[in-house]
Amino acid sequence: MSTVLESLAKLSISPKSVSHEATVDNKAWSDALAAADLGFDYKVTKCLILKPKTAKSATPTPVVVIALDSTETNVTALGKKLSLKECRFANEDLLKGTFGVAKDAVSPFALSNVSDLSLVHLVLDAALWALPGTTLLAFREGAADKTVFVTVDELKAYLKLIEKEEIEIDFSTLAAAAAKPAAGKPAGKAPKKEAAAPAEDSHQMGIEHKKDGDFSKWYQQVLLKSEMLDYYDVSGCYILRPLSYNIWKQITNFFDDAITEMGVEDTYFPMFVSNRVLEREKDHIEGFAPEVAWVTKAGSSDLEEPIAIRPTSETVMYPYFSKWIRSHRDLPFRINQWCSVVRWEFKNPQPFLRTREFLWQEGHTAHLTKGAAGEEVLQILDLYEKVYNDLLALPVVKGVKSEKEKFAGGLYTTTVEGFIPQTGRAIQGGTSHCLGQNFSKMFNITVEDPNAPANASEEAKKIHVWQNSWGISTRTIGVMVMVHGDDKGLVLPPRVALQQAVVIPCGLTVKTSKADEDKVFDGCKEIAARLKKVGVKSKADLRDNYTPGFKFNHWELRGVPLRIELGPKDLEKSQVTCVRRDTGAKFALPLDNLEKGVQEALDTIQREMFERAKAKMSDSIVPVDKWEDFVPTLNAKKLCLIPWCDRVECEEDIKDNSARTSNEGEEEDERAPSMGAKSLCKPFEQLTDKPIVPGETKCVACGQDAKHYMLFGRSY
Amino acid sequence: MSTVLESLAKLSISPKSVSHEATVDNKAWSDALAAADLGFDYKVTKCLILKPKTAKSATPTPVVVIALDSTETNVTALGKKLSLKECRFANEDLLKGTFGVAKDAVSPFALSNVSDLSLVHLVLDAALWALPGTTLLAFREGAADKTVFVTVDELKAYLKLIEKEEIEIDFSTLAAAAAKPAAGKPAGKAPKKEAAAPAEDSHQMGIEHKKDGDFSKWYQQVLLKSEMLDYYDVSGCYILRPLSYNIWKQITNFFDDAITEMGVEDTYFPMFVSNRVLEREKDHIEGFAPEVAWVTKAGSSDLEEPIAIRPTSETVMYPYFSKWIRSHRDLPFRINQWCSVVRWEFKNPQPFLRTREFLWQEGHTAHLTKGAAGEEVLQILDLYEKVYNDLLALPVVKGVKSEKEKFAGGLYTTTVEGFIPQTGRAIQGGTSHCLGQNFSKMFNITVEDPNAPANASEEAKKIHVWQNSWGISTRTIGVMVMVHGDDKGLVLPPRVALQQAVVIPCGLTVKTSKADEDKVFDGCKEIAARLKKVGVKSKADLRDNYTPGFKFNHWELRGVPLRIELGPKDLEKSQVTCVRRDTGAKFALPLDNLEKGVQEALDTIQREMFERAKAKMSDSIVPVDKWEDFVPTLNAKKLCLIPWCDRVECEEDIKDNSARTSNEGEEEDERAPSMGAKSLCKPFEQLTDKPIVPGETKCVACGQDAKHYMLFGRSY
Repeated sequence: MSTVLESLAKLSISPKSVSHEATVDNKAWSDALAAADLGFDYKVTKCLILKPKTAKSATPTPVVVIALDSTETNVTALGKKLSLKECRFANEDLLKGTFGVAKDAVSPFALSNVSDLSLVHLVLDAALWALPGTTLLAFREGAADKTVFVTVDELKAYLKLIEKEEIEIDFSTLAAAAAKPAAGKPAGKAPKKEAAAPAEDSHQMGIEHKKDGDFSKWYQQVLLKSEMLDYYDVSGCYILRPLSYNIWKQITNFFDDAITEMGVEDTYFPMFVSNRVLEREKDHIEGFAPEVAWVTKAGSSDLEEPIAIRPTSETVMYPYFSKWIRSHRDLPFRINQWCSVVRWEFKNPQPFLRTREFLWQEGHTAHLTKGAAGEEVLQILDLYEKVYNDLLALPVVKGVKSEKEKFAGGLYTTTVEGFIPQTGRAIQGGTSHCLGQNFSKMFNITVEDPNAPANASEEAKKIHVWQNSWGISTRTIGVMVMVHGDDKGLVLPPRVALQQAVVIPCGLTVKTSKADEDKVFDGCKEIAARLKKVGVKSKADLRDNYTPGFKFNHWELRGVPLRIELGPKDLEKSQVTCVRRDTGAKFALPLDNLEKGVQEALDTIQREMFERAKAKMSDSIVPVDKWEDFVPTLNAKKLCLIPWCDRVECEEDIKDNSARTSNEGEEEDERAPSMGAKSLCKPFEQLTDKPIVPGETKCVACGQDAKHYMLFGRSY
Repeated sequence: MSTVLESLAKLSISPKSVSHEATVDNKAWSDALAAADLGFDYKVTKCLILKPKTAKSATPTPVVVIALDSTETNVTALGKKLSLKECRFANEDLLKGTFGVAKDAVSPFALSNVSDLSLVHLVLDAALWALPGTTLLAFREGAADKTVFVTVDELKAYLKLIEKEEIEIDFSTLAAAAAKPAAGKPAGKAPKKEAAAPAEDSHQMGIEHKKDGDFSKWYQQVLLKSEMLDYYDVSGCYILRPLSYNIWKQITNFFDDAITEMGVEDTYFPMFVSNRVLEREKDHIEGFAPEVAWVTKAGSSDLEEPIAIRPTSETVMYPYFSKWIRSHRDLPFRINQWCSVVRWEFKNPQPFLRTREFLWQEGHTAHLTKGAAGEEVLQILDLYEKVYNDLLALPVVKGVKSEKEKFAGGLYTTTVEGFIPQTGRAIQGGTSHCLGQNFSKMFNITVEDPNAPANASEEAKKIHVWQNSWGISTRTIGVMVMVHGDDKGLVLPPRVALQQAVVIPCGLTVKTSKADEDKVFDGCKEIAARLKKVGVKSKADLRDNYTPGFKFNHWELRGVPLRIELGPKDLEKSQVTCVRRDTGAKFALPLDNLEKGVQEALDTIQREMFERAKAKMSDSIVPVDKWEDFVPTLNAKKLCLIPWCDRVECEEDIKDNSARTSNEGEEEDERAPSMGAKSLCKPFEQLTDKPIVPGETKCVACGQDAKHYMLFGRSY
């Protein structure tokens, strides 16, 4: 906890400070200050901490109001303005717990004590803000009997220091607006063309954090404010709202069609697994055991033995493979399921990237030969690449995982690796494993070899099938948000957008005639309908209580790829004005060419989003040929492509050395930018201009003979 | 446990019986019997109990072999013949546990002690079966020192009594067949046009129970043998295999498209629920609490507080409704999720109908007015009706549930009620609830009334939204199997069939030339490809190790709607021969008209399956106008449509009286055919030829004034 003076000391401010008798309310406080006869001018302030109503279990999102004592702060009207339900004064627990202060000692400087400022709404009285910068303001100095005097400019500097953006509120107009509806309006008719009375204030609506600033808070705000996701009262679990679930639906449709065409059949296994079954493959379960959730009770009865919730389904399904696969003619045997799995991670959860329950598909297949299995591994990996490239407009690097990073219990793992430029970290985007015969031996999944000599023994004729498993999850969505989003919010690739185009009536003023206005509104409706007819997911935003500017923000935040504006001037020219979400580029489109023009624009957006992201990823993959450059490259938020010896010990050394080098004295933290680099994959596309010369090219890390190029990087 | 003599006594057989020294093996036993010098002829037998390999956790499916002692019973060859993996002699546990006998006392009469005979494979030595009916057979008499003598006919009578069908095996040819492959066949070439060597014996493959016989066993066998479903080692959970999951996929696609068009958006809430949230609505949770599964551990750590797995999502979602719905402009607010829910029932589970985890969709919506909510309730109910009628070819009765049967915590419940003719029981097929304002008051989901007078108070302007919830589950699949299936297995309506048509090469004999044979095979491939091109899900079964007859059985069992046969004679006439699965009707189709003809045939099958089922259901809804006819109508496997007073007390009386009447002295059991009738619904279509006359028509059950017609029946 820092005191008021400590907080100010950081700004090299040593403010005036006085002691007086302890005062409980502002009236008594003003009187006490007046009685002290200080000999300089000042304005008494008030600092209110309010708690809007939220779900009982949710973390409170308090509102801090800094105002002149003389300003009438209507808490109800404020709550309405901010769209916060039932704002009430915070109780002692919240004050103590969140702000570290007592009731009569609240000042703006208590914000220094708040651990997560993104949860706080900071409201500033416009009347106070408008005062000359040198005006002295009286604040409580952390106690009921002390006052500190700080200028308006110093207060502004303090707020800048803590990086908390304020919401400026004009309480006088707020009070007037609140009083207005009672002023004899015709009932039952919504006001039109008036000053917008938005349910969300555009200030509060927008993203407060910069993508290049606090990336992690930016990410969370984008997800919450775009309404992709909401927090949930079971830690590590999140609600997928329609905007994000739709992306998963698009991925599902694309991928399910593709694997159905390949002959894979969908199935559904129970989410429950008995301990016995879960533990069948030791290497495999070792990786999952610490994260398994156990059901031990039903109703008020204890179960005879605990039952697990599937963390993945290899050991769940393979006993049945043994039963169902009776002959080589049943091969390839391929099933897939769309389901959720539970991995009760104790590390910091992160929406989409690390959650305790997530949605995925898991494919499980069996083949007669290693070759057939291997072929499918790559077919599936290509489909995963398509999901990223074609749907999410994201680049990936395809390759093979190292021995250390492969799937526990499998033979080899192929992967599509994504990349988040802001953090310089790679992220495993989807994996297609060849399990070899390890599981088929464990679960006795055999067929008779159709090619065995007739006189071979029973045992010699038996073939253990070759198995694959492959999965991709809702993690995809997180990568997409991180790569494409910007300071205005979400940017959705058209192919996964719930709304691809939004039509907004513009250019209407108080002078616009009713007839002209109707023309614009009807025009918007018609445009949306025409687009819908040709398969463009579009809607007209005809809400009459929001300004166009508000609507622009609203849909930009939500990432809608194309905004179509229609105003009286557009109508005159038989055109619409289009604005791309990804670039902000504006262009006119003749109404004659609407459908084709919009479809082309969406295609262009999709393509260019991919190209931009791809260029950024390519730029970030740096061939490194000496160890001295390795850590600096990582620190420059890049990935390192190095000639590598392909040894587990070397990989472990690289991780240790790249962590230590940049990490002197700091605490070890997987999430810190200074964590060690892991191998990401041996890219299928090896460097051709500088090929590895066997026996000559050396491993950049250890100096032994290099086998191939390997991509290393910090990763999620 | 019954003794051998008790078992035989039921057949009024008092067999010869002798004591001798205890003998451990058959050789010693034969010697002991010979030494006893009995003075009559007999054949010594052996009775083997084998255990095929199954998943450790699965219930064993033992094989009982009854053979002459002189027959060489090759257990490995037998296992192969029956497609059972690794048949080994059963251990003492299995003998004691399942058959109630010790190792040296096993006889066929131990079958009387088996609680679920459907799990046992009973194999009879053809050599024994072929003996004259009066031949005496020596069996162990439940102990190592006693022998009983029973004739072949008496053994046959016994097996008939216990209703266990045997599999007759000729061990001599079995042994020969097992030896065959070594007899110098060209390696690497599969035999063609030979006697089929099926992986499944056609006897074992088929359904052993009659639909009109033991319906419950028939149902289980159809599901297992058609490969719709498999049992799982967590009780009450089942594996949905592709054949059944595909039906759910078709339902999902149809229903999701329809609600998306209505403006409903898909979403996904976590499967976990905190206790706090679960318990918010008391009436509601009371119904679910005894069945809630609780997670209390993760990895090796105990959770701070137990977390439930959702049994349904009203209380999970509605706190967020309160947060998300900010204005009347957000209404209607409609979301839906496809997920699984868990209800840990302790009653007898039944595949699809009563399972601990099941798949469903749950829609949750909020509206400004009761009228708007009510309209949606019916729109959704119409979609549920369409799922049944149009996809599953099943009739339903639409109507409103009684107060007693409505959703706990809701205002009223509408339902589509299905009907299973074999049991005469109704089944709730899908429900669309209007929740009224109960939950919105509980969770404070309010908007400002857009039509309130401007001078109304804040409180008066507040409207609690009107909510609906609606769901349909994989239960649909169970109803479909029960209604359409027959003694040959599954019968699938074309619209939900994974394969709609299967093409089978026929009429090939040893005399067929290679060229002609190739023509037939190529023709089959081409037909399947042509059909696939026009969207008919078809495949050619070109397996060369099965006879056409075997394939017919195989696909009939799996319910494929249309079989297309192609033989040399068909080719000559440029036609195919089609056989409908539902009726067995056979017809020729010119190859010229293949696509159109097949599509029409599938449409006809779909339509006629529905019409037949509808006629059956209509016939089973009997208007009953006096109480004396009520129970007899139920007992005749019908539903009763009666003028009813609409009182809860009367409904309870009806249940009691209709149970007791037919149930004298028997044990109460929900599943018994004599259980009491429940109200099913007040059908939207009321009887028009005998309309209720207010004040005049009386309730059939209690004699008070009737309000409307109500459908009553025994139900699932």
